[in-house]
Amino acid sequence: MERVRQFYQFLEARAWDDLAPLLAETVVYEMPQTRERITGRDEYLAFNMNYPGDWHLSVRRVVDGGDQETAVWISATADEQDLDNLAFITFDNRGLITTIVDFWPEAYEPPPGRPQSTTRY
Amino acid sequence: MERVRQFYQFLEARAWDDLAPLLAETVVYEMPQTRERITGRDEYLAFNMNYPGDWHLSVRRVVDGGDQETAVWISATADEQDLDNLAFITFDNRGLITTIVDFWPEAYEPPPGRPQSTTRY
Repeated sequence: MERVRQFYQFLEARAWDDLAPLLAETVVYEMPQTRERITGRDEYLAFNMNYPGDWHLSVRRVVDGGDQETAVWISATADEQDLDNLAFITFDNRGLITTIVDFWPEAYEPPPGRPQSTTRY
Repeated sequence: MERVRQFYQFLEARAWDDLAPLLAETVVYEMPQTRERITGRDEYLAFNMNYPGDWHLSVRRVVDGGDQETAVWISATADEQDLDNLAFITFDNRGLITTIVDFWPEAYEPPPGRPQSTTRY
């Protein structure tokens, strides 16, 4: 899904003027972990423009669900900490992004009692 | 993607004899948050059979990337706690599951300093 790769390239490059035309004016951005929502293209752009810290995003895997939706796995760094980022993105009939649901799962140590078949990588 | 829905139905039902034939014998299951990996159909089944606590899974969204891969968003509960679960799943040419990459992002409170455009839901 070329639009999704472009989207993340522009975001990584802070190329706001290139990013804006990919978004529907009514785009909704959601972070289920904090139950936060941002509605509107300008508000979404401002959120990213002003996001604190040094962050970087590179696309690791795209699951292309056709014209209407896609899922993406991003390798991110935030202030040099490695993070995985998963997003579910939908598009309208013009190809503009209408919703982004964004997950930021954090690393943790395995709980005790895992079976011997479990290895670390 | 009907196979993915079946997979989660059988997992939720603890229908191990139905689940096993959906998996390649060399299936690899990964949890990037803990960097844990389980290799092999029997080992993967045993991991789930013996997983502690009362857990439930229902499919919320499937992004169907064609014959080879899919992404899925699961609404889970673990001991009555609500959780989101995201998985990236790949298939071989026989339609058997070859890899499952499983993420379990946890809820947290928004950090201070979010813009006013951010609402909670």
